[in-house]
Amino acid sequence: MTDLKEYSETYRLSANEADAQRELALTVLVSKLIDIATTHANLLHIGNPDMKDINAGWVLSRLTIEMDHFPSGTELYSITTWVESWNRFFSERAFRIDDQEGNAIGHARSVWMVINTDTHENAGLSHLSLPAEMISGKECPIARQAKHREIAPSTHGDPLYTFKYCDIDFYRHVNTVKYITLLLNQYSLEEFDRMRVRRFEISFLHEARYGMMVEIRSTSADDSTRAFALCDHNAENAKPMIYARISLMPRNDGQ
Amino acid sequence: MTDLKEYSETYRLSANEADAQRELALTVLVSKLIDIATTHANLLHIGNPDMKDINAGWVLSRLTIEMDHFPSGTELYSITTWVESWNRFFSERAFRIDDQEGNAIGHARSVWMVINTDTHENAGLSHLSLPAEMISGKECPIARQAKHREIAPSTHGDPLYTFKYCDIDFYRHVNTVKYITLLLNQYSLEEFDRMRVRRFEISFLHEARYGMMVEIRSTSADDSTRAFALCDHNAENAKPMIYARISLMPRNDGQ
Repeated sequence: MTDLKEYSETYRLSANEADAQRELALTVLVSKLIDIATTHANLLHIGNPDMKDINAGWVLSRLTIEMDHFPSGTELYSITTWVESWNRFFSERAFRIDDQEGNAIGHARSVWMVINTDTHENAGLSHLSLPAEMISGKECPIARQAKHREIAPSTHGDPLYTFKYCDIDFYRHVNTVKYITLLLNQYSLEEFDRMRVRRFEISFLHEARYGMMVEIRSTSADDSTRAFALCDHNAENAKPMIYARISLMPRNDGQ
Repeated sequence: MTDLKEYSETYRLSANEADAQRELALTVLVSKLIDIATTHANLLHIGNPDMKDINAGWVLSRLTIEMDHFPSGTELYSITTWVESWNRFFSERAFRIDDQEGNAIGHARSVWMVINTDTHENAGLSHLSLPAEMISGKECPIARQAKHREIAPSTHGDPLYTFKYCDIDFYRHVNTVKYITLLLNQYSLEEFDRMRVRRFEISFLHEARYGMMVEIRSTSADDSTRAFALCDHNAENAKPMIYARISLMPRNDGQ
């Protein structure tokens, strides 16, 4: 089973997975990271099918992505994933994205927790058994997310968004990829023609549901970075559901 | 090459392709129909790579889907496609969706045209050569779309939507799946808990672009059917970009 410590898949970029800049869309990349994490967990017998009897399942708690560049055209690329750490409360899973020559073009870190799918409460990982030799321990070479700070409402009023039918997935909550779509939609086409995502961070605090209206608060963290909070517009103190940070880099960087 | 007259692929439904009712999401089905059509066209050497030199490419002009039921859970399902008809102006391509026992659970019809990708004008099909034996001629057993009628604006004002960054694809126009998302989002979660899509029709009149604001006009066509028009809010006479019809059926139908 030692060959399962790392798991890889190779893909060919297709036009319908590309964004307006003809590169792999970040939303599609995230979808593939979740898919490959799911496949690897299932192969290691720590997947959702292994928790069916106790009505539990994995939820993504935090995701950080850093890309030097994105696959474009009809390039082949591959994603490799491994378990970086494991404890009673959560597991860290890392990813490396390689170009067709096998050079690393990006990395991702993720933190996963197990919830009871009926009560949506934290169920812990103690009921799962992962052989120690399957914990790679290999460190993902990108920084963990720094603490997110509260973002004050804008004096002009923040954009509002109400979650709709197609935002809701199998688990009856807002789908991860739909949050990312909402965040990317705060930028213009022209901004993404000039710049690309260098680093993307998202942290899931509470699950949003159908019909919830969120305030999309944002602030400049530094020249290239905007910090976001999606806050429940109708809750007391506009409770934050999601924190995120997006750092852009210019496209005219010789790549 | 006769084994290429029909082309099939088999898929296993995964949780992230399922909608809130745990069935194959219509948006995902459409995405797969387009993918398999593309793959089949490429194998027949009538695909976009074969038109690269003349800057031309296929565009979907019309799509009609009828489903008896949708795959659910982790069911296997397969899609088979064939060219139903072919002329100088357009090609009709049909699809059959089978469940894991090989029973047809749905069909789709599509009409495709070739445009010049620089001018976005109709380029016709005369420059492509498809051997006659590759035109199946097998008729798709669902009705073609009836003519769409103009829909008057609502006296209360129609919902408006502005196309955003993630709605735009590789071709710099609004992606087919994003129009369908917008249409399905006109229904509530509760409506789709009670009913499912029985028949879906969409007709593409003009390409919408980034930043365009559309009026989402709709009217009841019959008890189970709503007709939609997405109209350019800022154009004279609110030019229709898209016509669509969605027929629902109750879920408590013994299935």
